[in-house]
Amino acid sequence: MILNVEENNYEINIKNNNDIELRDYILENKNRKFAIISDENVYFIYRNKLNNLLREVDSYIFTFPQGENSKSFKIYEEILKFLSDNDFSRGDAIISFGGGVTGDISGYVASTYLRGIDLISVPTTLLSMIDSSVGGKNGINFNGLKNQIGSFYFPSYVHIDYDFLKTLDKRNINNGLAEIFKYSVLEDKNLYLYLKENKELDYEQIIKKSLEIKLKYVRGDEKDKGKRQYLNLGHTIAHGIEGLSNYSINHGEAVGIGTIYMARASYKMGLAKEPFYLDLIDSYKKYNLPISYEFCTKDILEIIKHDKKIKDNKINIILPTEIGSCTNKLVSFEELEKIINLGKEI
Amino acid sequence: MILNVEENNYEINIKNNNDIELRDYILENKNRKFAIISDENVYFIYRNKLNNLLREVDSYIFTFPQGENSKSFKIYEEILKFLSDNDFSRGDAIISFGGGVTGDISGYVASTYLRGIDLISVPTTLLSMIDSSVGGKNGINFNGLKNQIGSFYFPSYVHIDYDFLKTLDKRNINNGLAEIFKYSVLEDKNLYLYLKENKELDYEQIIKKSLEIKLKYVRGDEKDKGKRQYLNLGHTIAHGIEGLSNYSINHGEAVGIGTIYMARASYKMGLAKEPFYLDLIDSYKKYNLPISYEFCTKDILEIIKHDKKIKDNKINIILPTEIGSCTNKLVSFEELEKIINLGKEI
Repeated sequence: MILNVEENNYEINIKNNNDIELRDYILENKNRKFAIISDENVYFIYRNKLNNLLREVDSYIFTFPQGENSKSFKIYEEILKFLSDNDFSRGDAIISFGGGVTGDISGYVASTYLRGIDLISVPTTLLSMIDSSVGGKNGINFNGLKNQIGSFYFPSYVHIDYDFLKTLDKRNINNGLAEIFKYSVLEDKNLYLYLKENKELDYEQIIKKSLEIKLKYVRGDEKDKGKRQYLNLGHTIAHGIEGLSNYSINHGEAVGIGTIYMARASYKMGLAKEPFYLDLIDSYKKYNLPISYEFCTKDILEIIKHDKKIKDNKINIILPTEIGSCTNKLVSFEELEKIINLGKEI
Repeated sequence: MILNVEENNYEINIKNNNDIELRDYILENKNRKFAIISDENVYFIYRNKLNNLLREVDSYIFTFPQGENSKSFKIYEEILKFLSDNDFSRGDAIISFGGGVTGDISGYVASTYLRGIDLISVPTTLLSMIDSSVGGKNGINFNGLKNQIGSFYFPSYVHIDYDFLKTLDKRNINNGLAEIFKYSVLEDKNLYLYLKENKELDYEQIIKKSLEIKLKYVRGDEKDKGKRQYLNLGHTIAHGIEGLSNYSINHGEAVGIGTIYMARASYKMGLAKEPFYLDLIDSYKKYNLPISYEFCTKDILEIIKHDKKIKDNKINIILPTEIGSCTNKLVSFEELEKIINLGKEI
């Protein structure tokens, strides 16, 4: 199926086993050069598929070591040099082929090389399919902080082929499901109940549902100054947990923990009438998602101080009031400290 | 006087001796931090003025060595680190205080730090007042090529105080006038005749005229895909000349030479009915602007190959048909080589 993101002028194509339409898209502009950006592991798994997709096309492959550490200034500069050395011009294009790390760094490169060249996004993980491939945010980590440098830049085409998911291990799939749980807590109780059943999942449907929820919040607030911040449910703490764990807790897992903490705090603050966070914990356990992380609140606050959404020393916190509905609260760091402490188990 | 750039949501304030309104603008958001980015020479000249403008304001100064070589990856990264180390958040702001180099690098930093923070532009040279402070382009040089990395990003306020011009030497003033000559050839014969008189110049008027012409071309084509390319008159060759001369020929001078070459080629191609390029040469000489530069066409083409506007191996060339009017021509490199050779004297 096709989701049309008219306001940012691109299409998202969601389908299984869909090399043929990606190949068609590439051939539509056969005169261009393509730079495929991917991590070494993903490239190794899919090198034959890529060769086939790019046969008789003027293409160049850049790979980097897998992992969050590659979202660095060094790799950013290396890719720019690779494009420049190969005489890439504005009519040429980048294909981001991989997960969130690949998408983040490719997007930042695409938005700044020659002040912007075409970006085709081919997400290969569940998390990147339902989150980072949509919404235009990109970035690299800097000075020990996540996504400190980057831009807002939209792809010209997003190709989601959930056949890629069959090479992902369970933990990686669950990483994506944790973000989908977040969408469900934010907006869609039916989606939550469906996930909670933990049966064979219809990926086409849950990807579509997730992207529709995400697009609803991004639309009209691309630059993240208003309603888009609701998507940040669980994320304020999550970024801290990822950092403190030195990325041994992955993004989805951290967002899952963050969402539970916010739901628990919300109940204790009287914003949520029911202790539905207990139900959330049950659901997350079914997918082997961690439900807590030991940290010292002061350490987390030290990281949150660098959150991009801070304005006048205040930060907007999203608190769920029930499954499918949230509220927001602009709080000082002192208030945030209290909320985080309420969110912790006892 | 105020020029309101509604479509990009900012004002340009043009006035002489106008510290007071800059101070007012800064104080409007007194809670924020300000990072002043400037080169060492400009900072040395204006440190007292800056201290006065920023008294009782939480401000931080970053200076770098004057000159085109500072538009580098290294300085870009240093400024980002400076902001991060000083805990700059999204509500804080950058003040770009200087000429084109300062504006270009400050704009790129502002657009990518935390995915974008406020940029206040205070141009201190004639060229930056009438060109680079408006239109949203920024960038750094990379891999030996000019402005290869950058973005489109608009300031929140542009403060043009032409009192700054009194500390500029003649060559620097003429650098700006060469770009104003370009505007006049593009669009405004009266402006051309006024400049040609070479009397005491009314800066408020010529800055306003120049910006109005620039805005006319930028409006609706911010991303430089159509009519904005007309502003590139003289620039295709100019970027090459700047590079070949190792920046001993400055930007305005190179644009002046480029404009003469295009006017001469246009006459020889029969596009211009009159040899008005001879009149141009006379006018430029009055301002001690160079009217030619010795180069081998192959060397220039080698640099032009990296021009950001190339698409499908073709480039759009702007050719003046008379003073105040131009046409464009999409040409291959072979055609461009011929045009450049026609543009050379004899």
